[in-house]
Amino acid sequence: MRGQMMDVPLQIKSLLWRAERLYGHKEIITRTESGFRHRTYAEFGGRVRRLANALRTLGIQPGDRVGTLAWNNDRHLEAYFAVPCMGAVLHTINLRLPAEQIGYIIQHADDEVLLVGPDMLPVLEGLRDQLGRVRAILVLSDDDPPETTLTLPVVGYEAALAAEKEEYDFPDLDENTAAGMCYTSGTTGHPKGVVYSHRSHTLHALTLGTTGSIGVDERERYMLVTPMSHVNSWGMPYGCVLYGATIVLPGDHPVGVDYLETIEHGRPTFFSGAVTVGMLIRETLQHSDRSWDVSSLKTLWLGGQAPPVSEMRWWKENHGIDVVQAWGMTEASPLLTFCGLASQYGDLPAEDAYEVLGRQGQPLPLVDIALVDDEGVEQPWDGAHSGEVRVRSPWVASTYYDDARSAETFRDGWFYSGDIGRMTADGYLILVDRSKDLIKSGGEWISSVDLENHLMAHPAVKEAAVVAAPDPKWLERPVAFVVTQAAVTTAELAAHLRAKFPSFWVPDRFEFIDAVPKTGVGKFDKKLLRRDYV
Amino acid sequence: MRGQMMDVPLQIKSLLWRAERLYGHKEIITRTESGFRHRTYAEFGGRVRRLANALRTLGIQPGDRVGTLAWNNDRHLEAYFAVPCMGAVLHTINLRLPAEQIGYIIQHADDEVLLVGPDMLPVLEGLRDQLGRVRAILVLSDDDPPETTLTLPVVGYEAALAAEKEEYDFPDLDENTAAGMCYTSGTTGHPKGVVYSHRSHTLHALTLGTTGSIGVDERERYMLVTPMSHVNSWGMPYGCVLYGATIVLPGDHPVGVDYLETIEHGRPTFFSGAVTVGMLIRETLQHSDRSWDVSSLKTLWLGGQAPPVSEMRWWKENHGIDVVQAWGMTEASPLLTFCGLASQYGDLPAEDAYEVLGRQGQPLPLVDIALVDDEGVEQPWDGAHSGEVRVRSPWVASTYYDDARSAETFRDGWFYSGDIGRMTADGYLILVDRSKDLIKSGGEWISSVDLENHLMAHPAVKEAAVVAAPDPKWLERPVAFVVTQAAVTTAELAAHLRAKFPSFWVPDRFEFIDAVPKTGVGKFDKKLLRRDYV
Repeated sequence: MRGQMMDVPLQIKSLLWRAERLYGHKEIITRTESGFRHRTYAEFGGRVRRLANALRTLGIQPGDRVGTLAWNNDRHLEAYFAVPCMGAVLHTINLRLPAEQIGYIIQHADDEVLLVGPDMLPVLEGLRDQLGRVRAILVLSDDDPPETTLTLPVVGYEAALAAEKEEYDFPDLDENTAAGMCYTSGTTGHPKGVVYSHRSHTLHALTLGTTGSIGVDERERYMLVTPMSHVNSWGMPYGCVLYGATIVLPGDHPVGVDYLETIEHGRPTFFSGAVTVGMLIRETLQHSDRSWDVSSLKTLWLGGQAPPVSEMRWWKENHGIDVVQAWGMTEASPLLTFCGLASQYGDLPAEDAYEVLGRQGQPLPLVDIALVDDEGVEQPWDGAHSGEVRVRSPWVASTYYDDARSAETFRDGWFYSGDIGRMTADGYLILVDRSKDLIKSGGEWISSVDLENHLMAHPAVKEAAVVAAPDPKWLERPVAFVVTQAAVTTAELAAHLRAKFPSFWVPDRFEFIDAVPKTGVGKFDKKLLRRDYV
Repeated sequence: MRGQMMDVPLQIKSLLWRAERLYGHKEIITRTESGFRHRTYAEFGGRVRRLANALRTLGIQPGDRVGTLAWNNDRHLEAYFAVPCMGAVLHTINLRLPAEQIGYIIQHADDEVLLVGPDMLPVLEGLRDQLGRVRAILVLSDDDPPETTLTLPVVGYEAALAAEKEEYDFPDLDENTAAGMCYTSGTTGHPKGVVYSHRSHTLHALTLGTTGSIGVDERERYMLVTPMSHVNSWGMPYGCVLYGATIVLPGDHPVGVDYLETIEHGRPTFFSGAVTVGMLIRETLQHSDRSWDVSSLKTLWLGGQAPPVSEMRWWKENHGIDVVQAWGMTEASPLLTFCGLASQYGDLPAEDAYEVLGRQGQPLPLVDIALVDDEGVEQPWDGAHSGEVRVRSPWVASTYYDDARSAETFRDGWFYSGDIGRMTADGYLILVDRSKDLIKSGGEWISSVDLENHLMAHPAVKEAAVVAAPDPKWLERPVAFVVTQAAVTTAELAAHLRAKFPSFWVPDRFEFIDAVPKTGVGKFDKKLLRRDYV
């Protein structure tokens, strides 16, 4: 027997509808070179529809991909709504990827139009022969686009919007229609794409506003520092609009002082950003020769990797600000868990509470989580057994986009996260290791396998193993262990890697050893390397 | 282009999974004749699966309807999960309906098994020939079932559970599978059924935990007084289990003092119940010869009709307790709006805040609302124009179950609520009238049209119009305006009505008038009657 409820699809346009109808007076505030720009949700809605019209004028059809290569600003936020609401697909391209990877994913995603910050035009000029189907570029700026050597039409965003009307009748879409794409760096090879749907984005946004999660609330003010160019700024653009909250955006290429000026002006109560950005702000506060007013802040959500308890303590003790964490990834929209103090810990003294707050959190509603050993046998939730964390949820990907590597990650209806963890009896995840050979440096993935393979391609290298070492600034940095078969210097090996990889991938430290320790099945035993050398 | 996310259905079993895995230690507390019964979610989960096994033993198959005729207790809550999770349909039958309507809906819904409180057996004995396909009855009690004249198998609930095992592998279901049914009284004729789905219940439960809504939170304790036998106790059983909150249930046939004892023992922070129950508790507090400890309570959610501002003020001024309201109905699972003080009213003095809190609230996420005039033309949200409120949401019904009357209520993809309202520019609904001829007395619907038709069937009556009059206890009571064509007394008319309708339908007041005023198109002008006589 079927239920007899309305077949109302879960659609991103319903988030926009609510912000406009209930919260038209609330603001989106963006830092710009010439000060802070304030726009209300009422203005925002009109501009979103102008952008949809402009994209239609450029020939964008339902299902077409629209790429963005842009910072966290209000225009980028307009694209977050205009593109999916018209039935097209918002492909956010990570600004920090090396140019060749940007070229790869523009072509792999079949982007038709690109929305780019003016500072990104030189990158595209360098990729002129790798732009695939791109037929036009909109430049996100107040001004006319700068001179460019590109032969494609390059159009100013404001001029394009000014030429259009504010009305656009967004279609009703099947909720499984693609809404967005984002590429994530894998253990090896090209980045892999994830295709989000209206359903997944809507459910994820709804869950951001629940208790025991971020609890996005229209009475709070949210500063979104996590890149909108990657992992959907943790879903906060959709969550904040759905709940009608004030949004504060740090604008183009912010540095330490810019974050603090944005906090002083926008007076956010909540901040979401990478652990490394939180540390950068902390250092700026500590060493600045002027004092900064961060008194509006109540909560810092720091992620990308687990925030150290020392950071949590510093913010709490010096500014009364709570640092919270969650766990997730590109494949999961990204949020899977959130760490709060559940009621059974309500009376803990502060020192003991940090042990709980240092965990990765409890699964959100509609997130199913399990620990499995190498044979796929489920492990108990007793705080002692560990296993690879696998997850299932309506907002987790079922595959990578057109990518043969999907089968190793998506199996039996589960996503295998590659993270090794324990679960407490009350459902808190505690990560202990990674099964995949990835290093997370400054919030960005570095593939140890790719580095090892290229090191071993050097004629003087017999074996090479790369592992993560703790780093005070980047949290992790790669260290290379090398067994040589001919004379070679550290500088030569670094140059060899720099020719192929982004410079931040290149290890700061090379250790020459006699042999790489091996596991029972002959694999490099990186656990031993980490234990003995790092 | 389609999204490539997991096809994970929205299912009620995911709510249970979360309560068991994360909140196994939290409690469900039920008032019983012999004291308060405490069960943990861990125990609850095992009992839910035992019940599913017991129902399978009784022959229940996917899609079969399981009726409940029961009070708010933990066993009823077990049925809320066991029945839909096994793929069957939970048909909650309103305890307060007249017996003949109970007989009608048991047959109309094709109930196969009934779960009933021991005090309900006499009702079923009186309906012995109107039990349709019912093949067995489970009696929700600690004890063996009492003697009965029913010839069906009548089985004790605890004995049935004890005979089964705690394991049951709940199937993965299409999210549009029917999960529940509830019948609502209409303007005329038999009650009309609504069929909820796993999708609608899950989304509704999720939304109960969001900011700007009830905000169900595991750190709070919820006393559910709204009948679980009607309108899903406002969805709170599903919402509280999803979020892992402590549940406090008032048990079988509670009276004023029972509510207060339950508050003292269960120490709820939140209470949901009918406005009339809230008023009853207030009167008990005012007139009791002992003092009661209601200090645990922070919020009373009173509904069924709008709580008077005088009630809000009494609770706030005497106990510091906030009274909140929402708007919804059986057809909408039921919640459509919730009234909180949005940030723009944050600084209002208390007196002005009551004007806002007296509204019916803002639409929840995923609820689309519009005002339309008689021609279906949408009216502006300016706080001045009024219109019938129509709604659209994934948790609103698309039709009544097997009922020819559906077409007048469900049109063009909208549910026409029958309520007349205004919308403020910031999206607050203010109800002003009802387009349907219904009177809401003590939280129960009374059909004025049915009363009028039967009055006019009396040989002495020429015309009759029934309207609602304000009442201090029941909030509304029917008043009959009668034009006679022969001598008749009030007592005769009351007896005439009592022969056909439940006694609470019979007007307390009959007014004999010369003619019923008419509208331009010749209909009874009830607005005029209300204005001049009530």
